[in-house]
Amino acid sequence: MTDVTDTTDVAHVTPGTADPAGADLAADHDHGVHGYHKQKDEHLKRLRRIEGQIRGLQRMVDEDVYCIDILTQVSASTKALQSFALQLLEEHLRHCVADAALKGGDEIDAKVKEATQAIARMLRT
Amino acid sequence: MTDVTDTTDVAHVTPGTADPAGADLAADHDHGVHGYHKQKDEHLKRLRRIEGQIRGLQRMVDEDVYCIDILTQVSASTKALQSFALQLLEEHLRHCVADAALKGGDEIDAKVKEATQAIARMLRT
Amino acid sequence: MTDVTDTTDVAHVTPGTADPAGADLAADHDHGVHGYHKQKDEHLKRLRRIEGQIRGLQRMVDEDVYCIDILTQVSASTKALQSFALQLLEEHLRHCVADAALKGGDEIDAKVKEATQAIARMLRT
Amino acid sequence: MTDVTDTTDVAHVTPGTADPAGADLAADHDHGVHGYHKQKDEHLKRLRRIEGQIRGLQRMVDEDVYCIDILTQVSASTKALQSFALQLLEEHLRHCVADAALKGGDEIDAKVKEATQAIARMLRT
Repeated sequence: MTDVTDTTDVAHVTPGTADPAGADLAADHDHGVHGYHKQKDEHLKRLRRIEGQIRGLQRMVDEDVYCIDILTQVSASTKALQSFALQLLEEHLRHCVADAALKGGDEIDAKVKEATQAIARMLRT
Repeated sequence: MTDVTDTTDVAHVTPGTADPAGADLAADHDHGVHGYHKQKDEHLKRLRRIEGQIRGLQRMVDEDVYCIDILTQVSASTKALQSFALQLLEEHLRHCVADAALKGGDEIDAKVKEATQAIARMLRT
Repeated sequence: MTDVTDTTDVAHVTPGTADPAGADLAADHDHGVHGYHKQKDEHLKRLRRIEGQIRGLQRMVDEDVYCIDILTQVSASTKALQSFALQLLEEHLRHCVADAALKGGDEIDAKVKEATQAIARMLRT
Repeated sequence: MTDVTDTTDVAHVTPGTADPAGADLAADHDHGVHGYHKQKDEHLKRLRRIEGQIRGLQRMVDEDVYCIDILTQVSASTKALQSFALQLLEEHLRHCVADAALKGGDEIDAKVKEATQAIARMLRT
């Protein structure tokens, strides 16, 4: 009933990463590039793994796997998403928030408020 | 840099659902089918939507979208996953836990413990 | 700057506990007594420990303890509250939800929906 | 069954608040005073309100209030604790983290890592 081969498809769905060299070149010319730039490949790898987990969930539902086992897998995926978010947030604080502090003025207040609201959204989901 | 068409691919990646009639037939013969069976199509639809959100996240990272906007999208995906989990849990309580209560004996204790542990995992992610 | 006495004032706002013996008598005669009844002493002990943690937080703020250490203590208190909630929920499922299943009729649906909504509130805080 | 007096005993364990005036004086002379200093009164007010909620929970358990209503109140208390944590965190980012950025050197990395770990603990409770 299940087509196990569809997990191997995961690798095909990211044509955007086909030309990382070009992407890096563009980035070098771009002052506005955000803190997570250097970890981009790692982030994409994490997200593809999470995509694989979501497909795994579809397969589990399709094969009538026991509810509790599906819930365990949902928790793992949620955890993986939050791990990704935390890493993104750490880089954001290190770069964007710290930059705002160095620039002086009101921007630090705006940046800190914005980051705190993002954390509040993470907590409330 | 991004290939927007890859979102349309999402529909193609669920070959497992190609034969729902056959799946239902099998289910009709299976006493062990779980509570979520009737909502199967709805669950698969939800999960495909979440898969689309995860691909959207990959695109955002690939296009150097602002960190906070990515975090907002992560929160939306986490919320969608938890919504799915809650619906699954509701069906599980209605069917599996209620069945255990009707059967009598110790099974209800085991089922309730198992469900509570699943909820604890959801809370701790 | 701090008036320690005002925390003790909070004790005055609990007139409902003035006649616990009477309450228990009523409970013994009441079929509707809830699942957590037997664990009552354990629950009260847990809650008093959490109350102590909240007072500890007040002390920490008052003594200008380092923010991160306060946040660690907040996390411990939140975890303790959720542990308490999970135990209450487990007893509720074992007693109230299982009872509804045995009674038959529509009550099980209402009880399961109500429990799921409570879990959703726990997740979203 | 309930011994109301033992809740008031908890007040004895807070000797640290015995000399708040002295503590404030010390704070005025201390450059290391943390970001939340100015909001101290507001924080203490919030925490006393949360303490009141926890006592309310004890009362509810003692009076055999319906489980689901107790869970609703637990969710409200958890939410209030997280609100408090978010405000503390916002002040911490605005002051301690921004200060580390201005000082230069490696301290910003350590501070950002520390803050992210605190957020991770908040998420995982």
